[in-house]
Amino acid sequence: MTQPPVCYQHRVSYGETDAMQVLYYAEYLHVFERARSHLIRSFGMSYNTVEQRGLFLPVREAKARYKRPIRYDELVNVYTTISEWGRASITFSYELYNEDNSVLHATGMTQHACVTPEGRPTRVPDWLKDLMQHHPTNA
Amino acid sequence: MTQPPVCYQHRVSYGETDAMQVLYYAEYLHVFERARSHLIRSFGMSYNTVEQRGLFLPVREAKARYKRPIRYDELVNVYTTISEWGRASITFSYELYNEDNSVLHATGMTQHACVTPEGRPTRVPDWLKDLMQHHPTNA
Amino acid sequence: MTQPPVCYQHRVSYGETDAMQVLYYAEYLHVFERARSHLIRSFGMSYNTVEQRGLFLPVREAKARYKRPIRYDELVNVYTTISEWGRASITFSYELYNEDNSVLHATGMTQHACVTPEGRPTRVPDWLKDLMQHHPTNA
Amino acid sequence: MTQPPVCYQHRVSYGETDAMQVLYYAEYLHVFERARSHLIRSFGMSYNTVEQRGLFLPVREAKARYKRPIRYDELVNVYTTISEWGRASITFSYELYNEDNSVLHATGMTQHACVTPEGRPTRVPDWLKDLMQHHPTNA
Repeated sequence: MTQPPVCYQHRVSYGETDAMQVLYYAEYLHVFERARSHLIRSFGMSYNTVEQRGLFLPVREAKARYKRPIRYDELVNVYTTISEWGRASITFSYELYNEDNSVLHATGMTQHACVTPEGRPTRVPDWLKDLMQHHPTNA
Repeated sequence: MTQPPVCYQHRVSYGETDAMQVLYYAEYLHVFERARSHLIRSFGMSYNTVEQRGLFLPVREAKARYKRPIRYDELVNVYTTISEWGRASITFSYELYNEDNSVLHATGMTQHACVTPEGRPTRVPDWLKDLMQHHPTNA
Repeated sequence: MTQPPVCYQHRVSYGETDAMQVLYYAEYLHVFERARSHLIRSFGMSYNTVEQRGLFLPVREAKARYKRPIRYDELVNVYTTISEWGRASITFSYELYNEDNSVLHATGMTQHACVTPEGRPTRVPDWLKDLMQHHPTNA
Repeated sequence: MTQPPVCYQHRVSYGETDAMQVLYYAEYLHVFERARSHLIRSFGMSYNTVEQRGLFLPVREAKARYKRPIRYDELVNVYTTISEWGRASITFSYELYNEDNSVLHATGMTQHACVTPEGRPTRVPDWLKDLMQHHPTNA
């Protein structure tokens, strides 16, 4: 179930920076979201389709460690993996590198509950596990 | 139907600033939204209740003029009025002043369509007009 | 001085949507910013370099017209042009289409003052005009 | 050095919600920032002044646990404390309750490095410790 991480590339916009002239700390969680959507898409499905199949993945916990600031206009490589499958949860892990992968800017994780459209916890469905055990197709 | 404008006070956070060390231009539209919610609330109703009554007010047009930048931690006074009632639209106007009202930082407007929950245009309902012709109660 | 517009492609994230389940109106201004940075980059220079040369382009005015809502995960094509050169200002215009360019979702403009690092108005420098009169290189 | 936590009250805007119709997970970090600024202000100093004295407090780590979703227009009470003083770092902890404090919506923490304007780590200055050991003045 281990795959090579999938890379999502993100360019820092002006609107994401703050008065310290670096990427604002909350914006990393937006980038994480974009990266995990990209990962799911790399398995051949969009998160939109996941929801249409009746599975929602609200965030239960999020962590970020900020190691080196990221500036306006910089390109960031975000490597995302599924680091843990719970009975009714999925954990994604993130590593943010600079454009040539020589500097680790930040790491993070998000844990997601599996819930029904009514908001009730539910087991990770087999179709999701099956999907994500296959190799990414268009990373 | 002219009322004195209602004042909403907003303090600029770090996350709203950008690398020029001023309030980012898109954040003004968030502030406008907070100010018009505050105005509706001052009439004794929340926008939430407006939606629960089956009326949605999606933005059709927005404008902002940025006159003087606003910095981190500054308090802004936002004066909001309903500047026009269309047959099926409402226009709000905004003026952003500094804390002691001596500097006009920005002006803006948002025009909102009246639509049903299904997204169809609908006339401005009488109950909304009646509500908003009365004086604000807790500005 | 007329060029074909340059296209920037943007995918709507969850964090950009709101409780109406569409792209929030302030987020369009973030997208405009990304699109005009992309345009400048298509001329072979980043906005970062523009600032390093001592020219800042703060937004003086912004407008958006919202015609049809945009949903989560949709790809948007943003066509950007420089619609006007003032003596000390530049105006960008934006058109947002859906992925196959069959639906016009929104239009917008942003007018930018040319200012020195000290914040004083200055004429549009010749090097910027020269740069932007040439054809985009990597649209 | 234990003080009663200081309460910052925040109302959820439309722009902070997402397509699940709840406060988007990254927005909690914006709320944390507003709450810790409010805490510092309650000690009689703004974070602005902290920076003017040559001390910057960039975030080194952030965590949030999302227990119950928060909806548009809801009022949230954010209780903030300084939970740990490191040699060269400060940790803030946050608890988000609903308006009548009957529901715990979320908890979180942010750890901040103490750095000079040049970005070098520095010890927590005595004036900051002294300031924050005193009781809040205008919570």
